Amino acid sequence: MITVKEIAEITGGKVLGDPDVEIASINSLENAEAGEVTFLANRKYIQQAQETAASAIICAPDMEVADKTLVVMEKPYLGFAKMMQHFHPRKRPMVGVDPAAVVSDTAKVGEDVNIFEGAYVGEHAVVGDRVDIYPGCHIGDNSVIGNDTTLNANVSIYHDCVIGERVIIHSGTVVGSDGFGFATDEYGCHHKIPQVGNVVIEDDVEIGSNCSIDRAVIGSTRIGAGAKLDNLIQIAHNVQIGKRTFVVAQVGISGSSKVGDQAILAGQVGVVGHVEIGDRCIVAAQAGVSNSIPDDEVYWGSPARPMMEMKRIVAVQAKLPQLRSLVKKLEKRIEDLEAKGKK
Amino acid sequence: MITVKEIAEITGGKVLGDPDVEIASINSLENAEAGEVTFLANRKYIQQAQETAASAIICAPDMEVADKTLVVMEKPYLGFAKMMQHFHPRKRPMVGVDPAAVVSDTAKVGEDVNIFEGAYVGEHAVVGDRVDIYPGCHIGDNSVIGNDTTLNANVSIYHDCVIGERVIIHSGTVVGSDGFGFATDEYGCHHKIPQVGNVVIEDDVEIGSNCSIDRAVIGSTRIGAGAKLDNLIQIAHNVQIGKRTFVVAQVGISGSSKVGDQAILAGQVGVVGHVEIGDRCIVAAQAGVSNSIPDDEVYWGSPARPMMEMKRIVAVQAKLPQLRSLVKKLEKRIEDLEAKGKK
Amino acid sequence: MITVKEIAEITGGKVLGDPDVEIASINSLENAEAGEVTFLANRKYIQQAQETAASAIICAPDMEVADKTLVVMEKPYLGFAKMMQHFHPRKRPMVGVDPAAVVSDTAKVGEDVNIFEGAYVGEHAVVGDRVDIYPGCHIGDNSVIGNDTTLNANVSIYHDCVIGERVIIHSGTVVGSDGFGFATDEYGCHHKIPQVGNVVIEDDVEIGSNCSIDRAVIGSTRIGAGAKLDNLIQIAHNVQIGKRTFVVAQVGISGSSKVGDQAILAGQVGVVGHVEIGDRCIVAAQAGVSNSIPDDEVYWGSPARPMMEMKRIVAVQAKLPQLRSLVKKLEKRIEDLEAKGKK
Repeated sequence: MITVKEIAEITGGKVLGDPDVEIASINSLENAEAGEVTFLANRKYIQQAQETAASAIICAPDMEVADKTLVVMEKPYLGFAKMMQHFHPRKRPMVGVDPAAVVSDTAKVGEDVNIFEGAYVGEHAVVGDRVDIYPGCHIGDNSVIGNDTTLNANVSIYHDCVIGERVIIHSGTVVGSDGFGFATDEYGCHHKIPQVGNVVIEDDVEIGSNCSIDRAVIGSTRIGAGAKLDNLIQIAHNVQIGKRTFVVAQVGISGSSKVGDQAILAGQVGVVGHVEIGDRCIVAAQAGVSNSIPDDEVYWGSPARPMMEMKRIVAVQAKLPQLRSLVKKLEKRIEDLEAKGKK
Repeated sequence: MITVKEIAEITGGKVLGDPDVEIASINSLENAEAGEVTFLANRKYIQQAQETAASAIICAPDMEVADKTLVVMEKPYLGFAKMMQHFHPRKRPMVGVDPAAVVSDTAKVGEDVNIFEGAYVGEHAVVGDRVDIYPGCHIGDNSVIGNDTTLNANVSIYHDCVIGERVIIHSGTVVGSDGFGFATDEYGCHHKIPQVGNVVIEDDVEIGSNCSIDRAVIGSTRIGAGAKLDNLIQIAHNVQIGKRTFVVAQVGISGSSKVGDQAILAGQVGVVGHVEIGDRCIVAAQAGVSNSIPDDEVYWGSPARPMMEMKRIVAVQAKLPQLRSLVKKLEKRIEDLEAKGKK
Repeated sequence: MITVKEIAEITGGKVLGDPDVEIASINSLENAEAGEVTFLANRKYIQQAQETAASAIICAPDMEVADKTLVVMEKPYLGFAKMMQHFHPRKRPMVGVDPAAVVSDTAKVGEDVNIFEGAYVGEHAVVGDRVDIYPGCHIGDNSVIGNDTTLNANVSIYHDCVIGERVIIHSGTVVGSDGFGFATDEYGCHHKIPQVGNVVIEDDVEIGSNCSIDRAVIGSTRIGAGAKLDNLIQIAHNVQIGKRTFVVAQVGISGSSKVGDQAILAGQVGVVGHVEIGDRCIVAAQAGVSNSIPDDEVYWGSPARPMMEMKRIVAVQAKLPQLRSLVKKLEKRIEDLEAKGKK
């Protein structure tokens, strides 16, 4: 139990209504019941908020719902996140290092660690404190897992990689597989270039499920601190992802490309190799980035262009059949004019 | 051995030719030998059907091959499916619950179940009757696996998820990983929103390999009964997929979007968040759906539009250089007309 | 330690400078130190090459860097590959067949094999000599793994598949999952077509992480000798990939399509079912191939067209708003001419 006043303290909001209302949990607008707090971040749900059974609503200053106890703040979605974290703190398993887990003799394992049966920790690997390693995880030789990191079931970390602190990696994700590097000879045979670099994942990164993050050919593929990656993402060798950058599902970034800090690559975006996408750039869904993009730009389309330019192009595209008809009619009118002129 | 007459009974077809021909197995048109049944569903293979060594052919009424024993029906592809099922019934392993599998004390396991060594069944999980769980599968705490379901090797089911009956999930697929939910503060830091919902997969669903199906932030991500998902598909948190809907490989569906019943999303389609795609809709390959689509529509393109409209646009696009040349020529002709007018 | 003269012998290059310089390792232009060899394959890094601390540079004849010991050859990238292989030969683990690995009694295992704890080898499976099978790998019944092949952690090979010699498969990849085959009845229910074929991966193939390669409905899905697949690739049932073909990340190829030898499919390309892409074709990134492509063609776009044609289309697309403005202006000028004509 927590009072609305305490919710305001945790979220940095302001109470409108009775600060002593007691709250037991958090729920969505449609499912919340009495004794629960909910949140409103989008004006289009204001009617639903009016009808919710929730005992309190976290909302923005311009979305004040009548006759409800409110916790008002500039960033209600952030308030929602903080209350979700309050009511649903990280749950840790309590298996310790299972005697049937395979932990190499030369590995170093920290304090208060869970390693499930069916996980494998290679030679000279280092596992920090309060790390959770679920079944089926593989940690290759010499890799390092920072404190408070969680590897969900069936994550594969190859050898010599470095995973920071408070990192979360979801199932099926592969870190450190060989980059796609071959040199083709005069007979068309492809000779493998050994990929001898590694992957460095900095602190506070979260990576979704079934991502592929290749090790560098030489040096490091790097995911910057606080970056968040969704599912099924391809990160090729020697790619650099900036700090606090969002990479949405099914994005593919080709070798040696660099994405700046605080950028957003939306779903299914593709990026060619050896380009730079600047800080705070936004690349819209399904775009194909074939050239570098300066800081603070918004791009869209395949090939990707500045958003405003692309929007204008798409608007004309939508009317292409009409444009062609118009041109055909103009041609006819010119013919008529020409015919008249000849008379 | 089975007679052609029995094949007609199983498939609901009509025999043309000798009903007593004996059939030992089923094969493709090109590989079938005497004693085998094959099928013809496409007119372009009619010559190949004429030359096949097969002893019988399942085909449509308008594709009657001369001098062959035929089983004729409206849906020969369905007849083929039924005969493939007849000759190749589900093969089950016979390992039982391997003593080296990790099954928590509090888990409930049904009758006639196979759980291989190297599989993990969490606390309070429930495994139905006649379930097959291959090596490397992870079933999180409290998750439920319905009767007659198969989890192939290295499937990861997180905690609190519900998998229906007769479900097939292929290797590498992840069910219940955290949705991509973060609230960004004034410093650009992303605060994780705990994903406390689950995934519900209804009966008779099949899911291909290496799919990612995220748990709901609150509530359930749901895959409707009889839906069929191909490989490498991204299903974000709180997505709802309708009954008997087809989702083809590499499709990505963003958070909270809803796909109706009996719809088809073709390969590499992307769908933005918070939209609805109606019942029986078809979305063509590589389309980018950015708005809701009413029932029974066929859409294509990125951004996706009604198919007929998009086809007309694409037809003009293909001739854009010619259109530009024409416009340039018209401009010249107008200049000439204008010049004459000035004289 | 190796001399520059020996590097020239291994790579087939020609020494310019002191052939007796001793080289201990290989590194990138920017990171190389004294005693290391590096390489230059792109003129734009010629200044960087001038400043490198490396003791020798592998480069092309037209990129001769002043005052440096050079090994000059036509294909410096190939020379780089050979020296990377020289300094970084395949490293093999030395665990043997771990007593805790699950190897069926009926499986046949060759000489000098590593099978880690937590790997599973099914009934009647055959594992060749010098094979490395990492933890979490699954090899289904009757599957065959050729000599000198490496399966990284958490690779899933279904039953009855054939993997050639010197194949490398990266983590999370699935070989032999069921193809997406259903026949729909009059009620809209989808009846599974049992997928009873297999997958054949020929010699010298490398497959990246988290790929999905479906087994054939009847017959074989085939990856030709020397083909190289990147990550997160979808290969549907009965697809045929030619010899030494490159398939880049996130490509999806639909059922029964055939890609010729020595072709290149760039990232995120989609290919519909039942088409043929010829030998030595190149399909540019994000293209959507909806028809067959003859040998030696370069295609781009969605729907894909010959590159030169598509480039012209894209060039006009980029100027569509201007084209529309021009047409609008021409319309006005025609109106003026028409008005004059009426006077």
